[in-house]
Parts: sequence; structure tokens; C-alpha cells
Amino acid sequence: MSFAPFDWIDDEARRRAAAGLVRTLRPRPAETELLDLASNDYLGLSRHPEVTAAAAGAARRWGAGATGSRLVTGSTTLHAELERELAEFCGFEAALVLSSGYAANLAALTALSGHGSLIVSDAGNHASIVDGCRLSRAATAVVPHAQPEAVRKALHAHGGRALAVTDSVFSVDGDAAPLTELAAACRAEGAALLVDDAHGLGVLGEGGRGALAAVGLAGGEGIVATLTLSKSLGSQGGAVLGPARVIDHLVNTARTFIFDTGLAPAAAGGALGALGLLRREPERAGRARAVATALYARLTAAGLTAARPDAAVVAVRAPSADTAVRWAADCRTAGIAVGCFRPPSVPDGISRLRLTARADLTPEQVSAAVATIVRTAPEGASAQPG
Amino acid sequence: MSFAPFDWIDDEARRRAAAGLVRTLRPRPAETELLDLASNDYLGLSRHPEVTAAAAGAARRWGAGATGSRLVTGSTTLHAELERELAEFCGFEAALVLSSGYAANLAALTALSGHGSLIVSDAGNHASIVDGCRLSRAATAVVPHAQPEAVRKALHAHGGRALAVTDSVFSVDGDAAPLTELAAACRAEGAALLVDDAHGLGVLGEGGRGALAAVGLAGGEGIVATLTLSKSLGSQGGAVLGPARVIDHLVNTARTFIFDTGLAPAAAGGALGALGLLRREPERAGRARAVATALYARLTAAGLTAARPDAAVVAVRAPSADTAVRWAADCRTAGIAVGCFRPPSVPDGISRLRLTARADLTPEQVSAAVATIVRTAPEGASAQPG
Repeated sequence: MSFAPFDWIDDEARRRAAAGLVRTLRPRPAETELLDLASNDYLGLSRHPEVTAAAAGAARRWGAGATGSRLVTGSTTLHAELERELAEFCGFEAALVLSSGYAANLAALTALSGHGSLIVSDAGNHASIVDGCRLSRAATAVVPHAQPEAVRKALHAHGGRALAVTDSVFSVDGDAAPLTELAAACRAEGAALLVDDAHGLGVLGEGGRGALAAVGLAGGEGIVATLTLSKSLGSQGGAVLGPARVIDHLVNTARTFIFDTGLAPAAAGGALGALGLLRREPERAGRARAVATALYARLTAAGLTAARPDAAVVAVRAPSADTAVRWAADCRTAGIAVGCFRPPSVPDGISRLRLTARADLTPEQVSAAVATIVRTAPEGASAQPG
Repeated sequence: MSFAPFDWIDDEARRRAAAGLVRTLRPRPAETELLDLASNDYLGLSRHPEVTAAAAGAARRWGAGATGSRLVTGSTTLHAELERELAEFCGFEAALVLSSGYAANLAALTALSGHGSLIVSDAGNHASIVDGCRLSRAATAVVPHAQPEAVRKALHAHGGRALAVTDSVFSVDGDAAPLTELAAACRAEGAALLVDDAHGLGVLGEGGRGALAAVGLAGGEGIVATLTLSKSLGSQGGAVLGPARVIDHLVNTARTFIFDTGLAPAAAGGALGALGLLRREPERAGRARAVATALYARLTAAGLTAARPDAAVVAVRAPSADTAVRWAADCRTAGIAVGCFRPPSVPDGISRLRLTARADLTPEQVSAAVATIVRTAPEGASAQPG
């Protein structure tokens, strides 16, 4: 008998190839001439000398790793300082740092739901939220994108312990969730609201304090936020922010916290360095939003179809997955790195170029990027001739 | 109407307090007089100057973060180099690096199973494996601990696509899985075998090449390994190792890979530094095993009950959860940090002190640790008077 337990993988690979949906890794060098409009480094802090020095210094002082679970040997005073700073900056009582934003969402969703409870989840939520719902023992109701009334109805139909969950800014189209209305719906139904502020921190709110601070919801009774340290803060890791009793509850029950090694000191140190910089230079947040607005205005003026950006992500529609891939490749050849979202990473099946409006892009860089994106646009990308 | 969506959390906190099962974080300073027998830093590399310099250098050269998903901007040539080195060192065709060992297990289990398939999982497997089974769309059969015949029967009863999964070394008792017998059972039934070598890498096999290399299974047709970079390699992150087609499949389908930010450069650099050191000083692996054997011999000679260590973890039985907590606290007061495992972190309800046999412990440190652990042992811990 032949032993080939992975032959089914080849069939799947052939199907992907036939559909033009093969993903491959393209390692980048340390230095490149490419202009980056593809990363989530919204404030351009990942390579800021102050941030990299903080990361390097933490590795030298604390070690390359945390050496164990945060509950055993993996908690350092550096982690505690980062948690205090994050909570204070964003306006929450307490914070808990995990090894990724993905782990933070899994932790919050599993620990704050459970058997007999309900999670109401926006149809456009990030994969880590979807996986958190799956991992929880709760029932999950997926509601249409950005419809607070649908959330209220789903909560009302349930009655018992419940939690609504949403991204603050949706990664694919860069649109903001209706947080005020969602919070009102949750409050009316006695439910908690969990907001993943991965794309809001550093961009929205006064000085980048995030989407919840921007609408006066930070620190509220039934409000919990998840964050990532890997986007605006230019590092790695995630966090959950909320009332102190919620954070204590996670320390005691969240499996992706308890059974994971603590975040590496270098990542904690880098995030702390970025927070300090953002406190001193709060204008970085507004600059990222202004760059997004400029990109949107100029691309749509040239005839392209884009979603009006609520934060620092500008999504430009492509006629198809094939043309989106070719468009992104042509931009790259011309020296501009842009993101390319296509099935199955887009909930509505519409392929897009995804542009990141970094705060540190110069007007000249913005102009160069717009010119290249317009020049390389495929037929069918423009509502009117470009 | 009062709005208090988290009041149920206080009830749970009271129940935990009444049961004596409250977990609290105890942040440690950068420098401490405590002798560490609690971390998973098996080779003592986390603070090795060569490893921390590699981590710090990577942060300075590549940035504090990877800036995006590995599929967008988060793959660097540093990640590619680490993947080549890991695969080569452990004897596999290819490797994929993720942000944690937890994420690696979720990735491998979800991507290699799916609807209609079966996962056969050892009852003692780590929480991240349990969560990976839950997240997958596969049926899961949990079989009694370390019983290859039970695995074979479960696979045989299923018939279709299947995967057996086991830790190589179980974290709680430090015992090794019967990998040769498990691989034979899988081969007989046409199933794949996934082995989490978190506690084997750096300790087992020639020069620390891991549990699968130790028994000649590394690189086998139906064999996949997951690793962590946060234990013997002293850093942060995880990896999946296997045939190239399996790794390509994960790149295309594993959600915890696709939708997570790439591992921070400092963590990748630190792990590479540790791998280089381990290649030059392969005797570190044997030293960790020898320290474990010495700890076990001397603690049991003093009348304590311990599991014979197969790797670098020595578990010493405590009469109860309460006495285990007090025992660990007494050791700490005397200058020795030991782990304390108790419900719900132990599958069999038996509380233990968990000792890590670090390769860099001196004979004097081992003697001091043994003397303290024996002196502070609670009544009922010794089979005979200590």
C-alpha cells in the first residue's frame, strides 16, 4: 500500500493555480527603493531610530525572550509598564499584553463569552474575530456590515449574557464602524461591546488615542478594546483594554494568554518607545488621516473608484482578481508597493488595491504614488476615463 | 435599568477565590538574585550575549516590527534565512515561521484537517493543540495519554483523511511521547502525524535537533512538526516544519499565518543567533538532559515523588493544590524560583512543582536547588521521611 497522506494537498494546489489564487512569499531586503504603501506601519514608526533603539535596548537588558508564560516567568516590569501606558494613553482602567493582536482577540472573545451566551459579530470582522467566535462556546450571530439596528435585534432576541464585537476600522475598505450607535444598542440590551481598534490606534482620536477615545467611549462600563502593537506602534504584540475586573478575568481564564509565552521584551520595548514618541508628537495621527484624504481625493478625481477613508486605509476597486494582481505588480515595477486584496480575503468578492496612508509620506511621495496608480490602472478601473 | 454587563465576572472571581485558585501576575525586574528553575529557557540562551546582540541587531537593521502580514510586507530575507536554518537543523524539507508556537499549532491543525477529516489527539496535549482541534472543522477523537494502539484504533474506525497529533515531550510531567509507535500506527492507517516539539527542540536528538530527529522520523513523508522559538531558542515565535507542499499549503490557507503580522525581526534574529550557538556548542542539549537526570535522582533519593524526566522538565508531586502553592512560595523565599502546576492546568488534577533543568545550571546551583526543595517539602510530599 502506498503511503501518501498529503496527496490531497496537491489537488487543492492545482485548484488554486487554475483559479489564479496562488499566494507566494516574497521576502524583502532590509533596504529597498520601493515606496511602501502596503504595510500597516501607519505612523512610519517601525524603523524610527528611537523605536528601534528602544527595542534593541530591551533585548539587551531583558533578554531575547520572556522565557515562559506571563503567569510563570514571562511577566517583567517592562510588560507592566507597557500595560500601564497603554491603558492610560487610550483611557481605560487596565490593560493586558499578549503576543499578538490575533491572540488578544481570541483571549477576549473566549473569556468574555462562554456556554449559553451570544456573540453578535459584524460580517466584515477580521479573521481573528471570526476565529475567536468559533473558539468560544457561545452562539454566534453574524449580522450585516455596520448595521447597529441589526445588532440590537440580535441581542434582543437572545436575552441572556451577550457581547457585540466589531472592528473599529475595517481593514479591507478602511471604513469606520458606527461605534456610538453600537454602544447605544448594547447598552439598551444590557450587552458588552468589544471593539478591535487595530486600525484606529495611532490614527483616530486626539493624538491617536484610538477610535473609542474619539467618540468618548473609552473606559466605559461595558466597553472592552483589543489593540495591536504591530501597526501604528510599529512593533509586535496585542493587548486587551477594559475595566480592571475584566483584565483580571482574562489573566485567570484566557487560554491564549495563560498558555502562551509572554511577549518578547524587544517588542514590548519597541511599543513603549512608539507610545512615548506619539505622546510627544501627537500630530502624527492627523497627518496619517490627511494623507489618506489626499490619496482618496486625487485618485477619485482621476476617475478611480475608492471608498472614502475614515482612517488611514484607502481601498481602490479593481475590475477583477486577475487585473488587481497585475495592477499591483505594475505599481511595484514602477517603484510603489501597494496591497492587493482579493478572494478569499475580501468578504464581498470584490478585489481591491489597498493603500496605506503613512503619516511620514511626503507630498512628493503622495504625488508619485497617485501618478503611478492612475497610469497603471487596468481597463474597467475608472468610472470615467482616467 | 442598571447597566452592568460584567457583573457575572465578579461571581466567577469569588468562586475562584473560595477555591484558592486565583492567578496573579508578578512582574520580575531585569536583574534578580532568584535562581531560575521555572522558565522554559532550557539552554539558558535567552540572555546569552550573542543571542541578545543578534536580537538587538535585527531590530536596528530591520525595524521593531515586520509591518504587515508575511504575505504583504511582513516577509523579510531574515525570516527566509531563519526558515532555511530551522528546516536544515531539524532535518525537514521546509519551514514556516509564525508569531508564536500557539499560532503554529492553530495553523497546522486547521490547515491540515478540515470538514470530514479526523484529528486524533492525546489527552495530555497542550492547550494550543486542543484549541487547534476546536478551531478546525474536523471531528476530534481524544485518546488516552501515550497509547499508540488507541490512536491506531481511532484512525482505523474513521477511514478517511486523518491526522494524529501529540506533544513530543509533555509539559506537565516531562514525559516523552512514543513517537516511533505513533508513526507506525499512522503509517498503517494512512494518516499524517503532527508532533509539537516545543519541549524537545534543543534538548533531544543529536545536538538538540529535536525529538523527531532523535528517532529518525524528521523529514518523513507524513510527518509535520511544530516548534517554538521561545523555549530552547530563548526568543519568541513558532514554526511549522514539513514537506514543501505542506508548507506551501499553509502559506495559502492557514488563517493564523495569513491574517497575522509577521514575527518581529528581533525575535527572528534572536532565534537565528541561538541556532548558530547551538550548532557550535551541541553539547548544551546533553547538559540539559544530564541536569534533569541529576535533579530527578537526588529528589527521589530524598524521598520525593517525581516523574522520570525524558527531556529537561522534572515534575515533583505535591499532596494538594494548597500545599503546592505554599511549597513553591517557600522555595521562592529561599531564593529558588520553581513552577507550580495545579488545576485547571493539570489534566489529572494532581498538583506539582515543575522544575526546569537548564543546561547552564552549575553543580552548586543544582545542589542548592535540591536542598531547598527537600527542606521546604510539605508533609505528605515524601513517600518516605525526607
